[in-house]
Amino acid sequence: MSDKSPALAAMTQDELDARHAEKMKKKKAARDKILATKTVEKGLLIVHTGKGKGKSTAAFGLVFRALGNGMKVGIVQFVKGKWETGERVALERFEDRVTITAMGDGFTWETQDRRRDIEAAAAAWERAKALVMDDEHDLVLLDELNIVLRYDYLDLAEVLEVLRNRPPMKHVVVTGRNAKEELIELADLVTEMEAVKHPFRSGVKAQKGIEF
Amino acid sequence: MSDKSPALAAMTQDELDARHAEKMKKKKAARDKILATKTVEKGLLIVHTGKGKGKSTAAFGLVFRALGNGMKVGIVQFVKGKWETGERVALERFEDRVTITAMGDGFTWETQDRRRDIEAAAAAWERAKALVMDDEHDLVLLDELNIVLRYDYLDLAEVLEVLRNRPPMKHVVVTGRNAKEELIELADLVTEMEAVKHPFRSGVKAQKGIEF
Repeated sequence: MSDKSPALAAMTQDELDARHAEKMKKKKAARDKILATKTVEKGLLIVHTGKGKGKSTAAFGLVFRALGNGMKVGIVQFVKGKWETGERVALERFEDRVTITAMGDGFTWETQDRRRDIEAAAAAWERAKALVMDDEHDLVLLDELNIVLRYDYLDLAEVLEVLRNRPPMKHVVVTGRNAKEELIELADLVTEMEAVKHPFRSGVKAQKGIEF
Repeated sequence: MSDKSPALAAMTQDELDARHAEKMKKKKAARDKILATKTVEKGLLIVHTGKGKGKSTAAFGLVFRALGNGMKVGIVQFVKGKWETGERVALERFEDRVTITAMGDGFTWETQDRRRDIEAAAAAWERAKALVMDDEHDLVLLDELNIVLRYDYLDLAEVLEVLRNRPPMKHVVVTGRNAKEELIELADLVTEMEAVKHPFRSGVKAQKGIEF
């Protein structure tokens, strides 16, 4: 499907080239102008939410980018067993600069024990708080924190207060569906991952290397 | 903000626990039932599109997950200089299992030379085709291919044909805004990254370790 107009289709190569150069020049000028106004440097609070795939995966990409830039990264997983071998093995190559805490007996779809889940969430949050507030880690990933907040396993007000009072250059990434409105409000960057198409619909199972 | 109903608020801890256990049991049963029907294993064609952030970053996360699982990965970047130090340094730790091709003089917002861009796109596509069709790489990332397709720098029909005829277990990830309808149609998994909030709006500049 081409969206070329008849006028465009009638142009010679040279005319197309000239038209393109002019268009790109304008785009570049507009872009440069916008970039020039962006001068603030600060730690970002980033939220990945929505029902689509890629929330934790994009956070994982951010972690590797930060590691590649020499940063120190702290990770707390609020859903047990969420990350499998792939992530762990890859992170081991940077073990001097990354610390991972997984909720010991934490929330999974397998548990039906609410009290134990709440205790585990509280313990993971203590660890998260320390990572968010310290002067050592540049980026902190709170993977699936939204799920724990959604089940009211943690006090939202306290979580927000800690995030609000973190050191100015600390980057924090929060993932999970159903991000609370107040968290979205506080965040600097929120991306909603929307599923347009999902392989489950055609009977494809979760596969090693791709899904975990 | 709590969304607890008055009935829920009046429950004892024990009642809440029992109610929760019952709910989770049902969820697990539903989930297990769905998972049991997912039996197909195949290479996935994954598309990350939309105007939000995280398209390439999530792809980058997939790359690391695959590398962590011992897979071999090929990457072709259709927009020059898109990935910076962070990604490259991180990938170097896996250099035995990842190959990266960047479009030499490829499309950037800086160039206004359409013919050179088309040549560069064609060269990058040759490389992409080899990676997609070989028996060596398990996952191929075609970063920002959508942009090149959007500008009609490559023949969409040929790209679709190559993707359609790839080896059955080959995973391919395509990123970039404005994914063509036909590509979405062919894909197994499509995620649209939608920007809910962006730091540019508040004057925050792109920062090392986070944006690049």
